[in-house]
Amino acid sequence: MSIETSNVNIQQKVMDLVASGDGSQLAEIVEALTSKQVIHLIGHLSQNEQNRLFTLLSPENAAEMLEEIPDMQAAHIIEDLRTKDAAAILDEMESDDQADLIMELKTKDAEAILQEMLPEEAASVRRLLAYDPDCAGGMMHTEYFAFLEDQSIRSVTEDLRKNSEKYASFKLKYIFVISRSGVLKGVLQMQDLLLAGMDRTLSDIIVRQISYVNHQVSFEDLLDFFDINDWFGVPVVDDQQKLVGVVLRSDIRDAKSERQSVEHLESQGIIGGEELRTMPVFLRAKRRLSWLSVNIFLNIIAASVIAINQDVLSSVIALAVFLPIISDMSGCSGNQAVAVSMRELSIGAVKPEEVFRVLGQELAVGMINGLVLGLLIGMAAFFWKGNLYLGLVVGGALTLNTMLAVCLGGTVPLILKGFKIDPALASGPILTTVTDMVGFFLTLSFASLALSYLGGL
Amino acid sequence: MSIETSNVNIQQKVMDLVASGDGSQLAEIVEALTSKQVIHLIGHLSQNEQNRLFTLLSPENAAEMLEEIPDMQAAHIIEDLRTKDAAAILDEMESDDQADLIMELKTKDAEAILQEMLPEEAASVRRLLAYDPDCAGGMMHTEYFAFLEDQSIRSVTEDLRKNSEKYASFKLKYIFVISRSGVLKGVLQMQDLLLAGMDRTLSDIIVRQISYVNHQVSFEDLLDFFDINDWFGVPVVDDQQKLVGVVLRSDIRDAKSERQSVEHLESQGIIGGEELRTMPVFLRAKRRLSWLSVNIFLNIIAASVIAINQDVLSSVIALAVFLPIISDMSGCSGNQAVAVSMRELSIGAVKPEEVFRVLGQELAVGMINGLVLGLLIGMAAFFWKGNLYLGLVVGGALTLNTMLAVCLGGTVPLILKGFKIDPALASGPILTTVTDMVGFFLTLSFASLALSYLGGL
Repeated sequence: MSIETSNVNIQQKVMDLVASGDGSQLAEIVEALTSKQVIHLIGHLSQNEQNRLFTLLSPENAAEMLEEIPDMQAAHIIEDLRTKDAAAILDEMESDDQADLIMELKTKDAEAILQEMLPEEAASVRRLLAYDPDCAGGMMHTEYFAFLEDQSIRSVTEDLRKNSEKYASFKLKYIFVISRSGVLKGVLQMQDLLLAGMDRTLSDIIVRQISYVNHQVSFEDLLDFFDINDWFGVPVVDDQQKLVGVVLRSDIRDAKSERQSVEHLESQGIIGGEELRTMPVFLRAKRRLSWLSVNIFLNIIAASVIAINQDVLSSVIALAVFLPIISDMSGCSGNQAVAVSMRELSIGAVKPEEVFRVLGQELAVGMINGLVLGLLIGMAAFFWKGNLYLGLVVGGALTLNTMLAVCLGGTVPLILKGFKIDPALASGPILTTVTDMVGFFLTLSFASLALSYLGGL
Repeated sequence: MSIETSNVNIQQKVMDLVASGDGSQLAEIVEALTSKQVIHLIGHLSQNEQNRLFTLLSPENAAEMLEEIPDMQAAHIIEDLRTKDAAAILDEMESDDQADLIMELKTKDAEAILQEMLPEEAASVRRLLAYDPDCAGGMMHTEYFAFLEDQSIRSVTEDLRKNSEKYASFKLKYIFVISRSGVLKGVLQMQDLLLAGMDRTLSDIIVRQISYVNHQVSFEDLLDFFDINDWFGVPVVDDQQKLVGVVLRSDIRDAKSERQSVEHLESQGIIGGEELRTMPVFLRAKRRLSWLSVNIFLNIIAASVIAINQDVLSSVIALAVFLPIISDMSGCSGNQAVAVSMRELSIGAVKPEEVFRVLGQELAVGMINGLVLGLLIGMAAFFWKGNLYLGLVVGGALTLNTMLAVCLGGTVPLILKGFKIDPALASGPILTTVTDMVGFFLTLSFASLALSYLGGL
């Protein structure tokens, strides 16, 4: 098997067809692309070409492409289209993708597009938008098979046949059976319809003991649900037991992977957990700056510890060489512990309330690594200047500060999570600010104690 | 729905039953646990309790629990068991989990356990171990239905019935049809057997046009394959077209999520991409140190730039306050760009060869953010000492160094990936070493140029 195709060729071909306005050849090409190819292609077209492409494609093809790319990017493309075209594309998307995309739009644009969409599609989007995106209601699809319990097998079969095109896109093939008021009564598999007599009603043949989830159930509970149950999807009901949607196993897996990615980007200072280089330069710069400006402020606070002890530094200028090392190494040691805690939180190996357990586990590692690193930097200082006291000052400071950094790094994510603050975003800055301040303070204080042995270095 | 159960209660109950040696009650409890609960439980038992638990449980139950926890942790537990018990548990595991676990064991232990395992299970593990873990052969299951093309439907049906217990664990329900030499000939669905006459042979009813993958196909190609094809699994054949296994869609998704996690941990300095706090303290300390000791060495190299220019520093001691800030802020700006590049590489939005494209996109952001951050730090310096030149020196240095950091951060992951070096592990240290050196050099060089205006600060 080889599905290697040149991205450059695809891009060139699409650009040519966009220029010549050949929609049907375009459709042929884009239908054969993998999602990676779609992402690559869209990112390499100019805003103008993107606009022409999505205007030339049928709403179905356009919808399929938009479902492949990150929501933020899809939103930019949608906002550039005429409202009518945008609405037609959204009408063709799956319900959960519709809601995710609409959420990324400016409210004004979203409202205009919803007005132009098919009334039933718009109503379904509005229902989904009302939910927290991290609960069952926010993650569910509204495309599912539901028939009334007193319907005959014949009428259901006819309906399935008549609407086969619409139903083809339904991902979950179970048939749900509801009462006239919409209450979930039971479930059927497609083949049950084939085996039953045409004149019987659904209520004769349904399985009544079925699992379902309430629309407010959290993402975490859904993860546990699919962990225990080996199903492809689960029906979602509201507080009156009315069927309102289905959540698919694949949605939950995708959401989990998406969360990992957001967490990683946030921990590196990308607020919101997403940036694509196709976004406008000023927007990208602004989003990154919102994090950097907090950090520079924290950095200045930490460095003020040096400013206050400037007299020590001016007597022992050699210390200035070691301050950035102590700051950076403590950050590294602490971030290792942060990463392990984030990982253990996410797989469930540790709970936020187990701070003291983690503290004990990190203290031991912090002591070992602190001693080793302190010894290394102390020896470097000693051999550089031939002064034992300089070695003791910087080695001692790094040893203690590493212990602190490792303990803080391990526990801060748990504490933040316990207070419902996003640990991915906040752990790093808190950690480095504290360890910088303490590291500078320890180094300069130890030096002031040993000042008579250090003068002139 | 509520599946909230107290982890503390579970842990206490399991510890009591382990102490009293009640295997059947233990079995009842562990069978009902979610995978998060299993991970939490195992992590909270002492090594001794873990050993007793896995000795008391049936090999089936033990295997199921080990499949839930990280491989490294499972390997520690297996190494502590008697070889006979370990082999019995491994015999019950799925083929891909067997291979993953054996790979984590010391070679000596692995060999001893393979000797004790059922010969057919051991042979299947050895076949999988021969593959690169990131290709189809390394990811496949060897549990699949395969029958000979000249077998009658009757004999197949009888076999399925006779071995129904063994087959129950097979995840892919397609039936593959092979020649006497093992060559893949076609595929069937279970229901095709029901509808065909008992005396016909498989070759009469199989679908012959089927997709398959070669055993050497890469993880990336498998991702693309499942992206295009809406199937649950794909057969894997060797170079002679002989059927050797199946890869499931769910395996590929899990592997993708696992990779994200490994990448994140590596980028924070956890070599190997995994650490659990249940690992022995000295092992954890040693693994973290292997990364830290490289970093401290790089830090000393970077700081030597300060040592060389110590005379400038001793004339303008105020600069010592700004050196750690410039080092840290450049690291922050650069790491943002690293994170975005890693994300774009992983979703396919950018290819390693597009270094210049990314350079252009980052240069713009780097210039804006460099100017803003330079202005902020320059103003802080100016207001602190009331000296315009100090502001210009540190502001100018941070502006230029931020531009460099952002450009490097964006491009280094692509360059490393192009040279097949793991960008998650290497990008950070390379970035911070270069930006530290350049940042210190710029600050001290600018200061030496403006020395006559800065003296005594």
